[in-house]
Amino acid sequence: MPGPEEFVVTPYEVRGRVDYDRLREMFGTQELTAELLARLRRLAGGQLHPLLERGIYYTHRDLGSLLDAYEAGRPFFVYSGRGPSGPLHTSHLAHFELCRWFQERLGVPMYVQITDDEKFWSRGGLTREETVRWGWENLYDILALGFDPKRTRVFFDSRSIAALYPLAIRVARKITYSSVKAVFGLEPSANIGWIFYTALQTVPAFWPSWAERTSVPCLIPCGIDQDPHFRLSRDIAEGLGYPKPSLLHSRMVPGLLGEAAMSTTGASPENALFLNDPPKVVERKVRNAFTGGRATVEEQRRLGADPEVCSVWALWKSRFAESEDRFRKITEDCRSGAMLCGECKGLLLERVHRFYTEHAAARERAKSWAESAIVTGPPAGLEL
Amino acid sequence: MPGPEEFVVTPYEVRGRVDYDRLREMFGTQELTAELLARLRRLAGGQLHPLLERGIYYTHRDLGSLLDAYEAGRPFFVYSGRGPSGPLHTSHLAHFELCRWFQERLGVPMYVQITDDEKFWSRGGLTREETVRWGWENLYDILALGFDPKRTRVFFDSRSIAALYPLAIRVARKITYSSVKAVFGLEPSANIGWIFYTALQTVPAFWPSWAERTSVPCLIPCGIDQDPHFRLSRDIAEGLGYPKPSLLHSRMVPGLLGEAAMSTTGASPENALFLNDPPKVVERKVRNAFTGGRATVEEQRRLGADPEVCSVWALWKSRFAESEDRFRKITEDCRSGAMLCGECKGLLLERVHRFYTEHAAARERAKSWAESAIVTGPPAGLEL
Repeated sequence: MPGPEEFVVTPYEVRGRVDYDRLREMFGTQELTAELLARLRRLAGGQLHPLLERGIYYTHRDLGSLLDAYEAGRPFFVYSGRGPSGPLHTSHLAHFELCRWFQERLGVPMYVQITDDEKFWSRGGLTREETVRWGWENLYDILALGFDPKRTRVFFDSRSIAALYPLAIRVARKITYSSVKAVFGLEPSANIGWIFYTALQTVPAFWPSWAERTSVPCLIPCGIDQDPHFRLSRDIAEGLGYPKPSLLHSRMVPGLLGEAAMSTTGASPENALFLNDPPKVVERKVRNAFTGGRATVEEQRRLGADPEVCSVWALWKSRFAESEDRFRKITEDCRSGAMLCGECKGLLLERVHRFYTEHAAARERAKSWAESAIVTGPPAGLEL
Repeated sequence: MPGPEEFVVTPYEVRGRVDYDRLREMFGTQELTAELLARLRRLAGGQLHPLLERGIYYTHRDLGSLLDAYEAGRPFFVYSGRGPSGPLHTSHLAHFELCRWFQERLGVPMYVQITDDEKFWSRGGLTREETVRWGWENLYDILALGFDPKRTRVFFDSRSIAALYPLAIRVARKITYSSVKAVFGLEPSANIGWIFYTALQTVPAFWPSWAERTSVPCLIPCGIDQDPHFRLSRDIAEGLGYPKPSLLHSRMVPGLLGEAAMSTTGASPENALFLNDPPKVVERKVRNAFTGGRATVEEQRRLGADPEVCSVWALWKSRFAESEDRFRKITEDCRSGAMLCGECKGLLLERVHRFYTEHAAARERAKSWAESAIVTGPPAGLEL
């Protein structure tokens, strides 16, 4: 266990209380400055997505040059993926939500990757039937966020392998086992599928450039913990003649039980709100969630609570506060003691239940076009 | 360099003068006994293929149980492959020739694998365009041996990946980097494609069982040097619910320059007769080939020559002597001194030129159906 001042962040583990500024320095990523945010706001028509406005995304690599190209008339695309090991929870949606916003505001194409092969390789307990089933379930949830069917394509690995493989062959020659071991910590006892996998995860970042025989820049919103992964993709990009993907990094959303990240593998299911949780379960989880409240009502009325450590506030911040005004009010009422934790949880539950209801309807609509979004073959003439 | 008594045989290297009996003991393979050969002869309608008759194939794994099943009405299939790094030479044809014989005599299906991905990964100097081009060229040469279009299917890796991948996902989870390192000596600096590759090379051995949802035994004729590779396939077969592939192992055909194996990577092009060599080049190579002849004509007439060390005799034995009678006569006339090396080479050249002419015509016919033999998708209902 790391001490109180220590933390661990790797693509497969997040532990301890993360010092995000130090992490940015350690990883050598660039700060998402007020200037860059202002530029994004302008390009997006005057508004920023709450995930940007509230600082959930906080560092980047080469966002500036991506926007330079965009302003010069060269559109980019957004790419994010999901390893289907089980149901999605609300904080899994952040990167997809940001992608959707980019698509809506800047008109850019979206590529989703569903890595049903990787999850079979990296999780010994899952069957192929399970990873494929979760792949579909997760895909419906992702598309339900409001992606445009005309500008959204899906790589569902086991279904899309004919589209991915010709490029994966070229990518894989550029990556050694040593690199994979260094980045992911995969020991010699790891299976060769898992070791190979990073080649397939890199392919979508280059795919549109390959398919369109021109340079199409890529933007990947991801958790800061995934930066090492895509650093590998960036390292090999130029050797293959493709632009380095730009990255936008988020902080991790803390779990309901107060852990560093909602998505920590092996965490209790009570740690997150899963999209397939029935209303009663959602209610129980929120009611039991870890907060920054005081020991007594009297104390809290007098001193206020601490939102910075509160998992309920993190939910407001990362997803559920509809506007900056509301988010500000919730934060102020929490700090001042005007609103107690029980009341705050009740308001959040209203909001969450509404989201679940709307999401269920959107998910049914997404089912009607999910299959047709899957890329099944290589671009014409590029079977090599 | 190994000393005169030493030799090295691995899937990627053959050096020194190979002691085949010792190799069989080291690898723990079973002797191809007179009894097994008699049984094969009977099943094949009274004749053995020269490669069996002359002892080029000399050990096996589980051939007996394969024939038991065949006699009980459960047909097997034959499988062999080629890594397309350049033109084929005549000794590359041996395994395919034996497969063709099994198909003709026992009516079994044949699966050919063209590993254009693996050769790109394992040979840094080759481009994708080259491995694909050689893949087609090699495939035409293989099919030209006389395979039956109705019972012959081809996995051309980059074209067949959608057919191979669902099963490769399952196979790859069973193989660790440690195993690949132990069997192939692939160091951590090896690229992850090459490391992954052995999964794809194992797939055809299980593919018919998977596709037909029943147990279909597999027979793989291969050089004894490739035994470690397929031992890996055998090790994981039962865990996946498939029968272990049976193996038939050959000695290596010595090169024209007297080296241990014609196929040694990096050997001089003068070491082998390539199928795209023009007649003049074939003539030069045969005329310059290493023989077991004596220093002078007089001495050879008196003492005879030594066919066992002669690369020309090896060509007669492995491919070009049409009948056992002719092969016996050539061997006797060599040993007795009745035939000198120049005369022998002249007779061989006649035979080789005739083969090249007939092969060229057969190759044109093969081109007409090669494309249609390629498996491009998974078996219906088995996309998992």
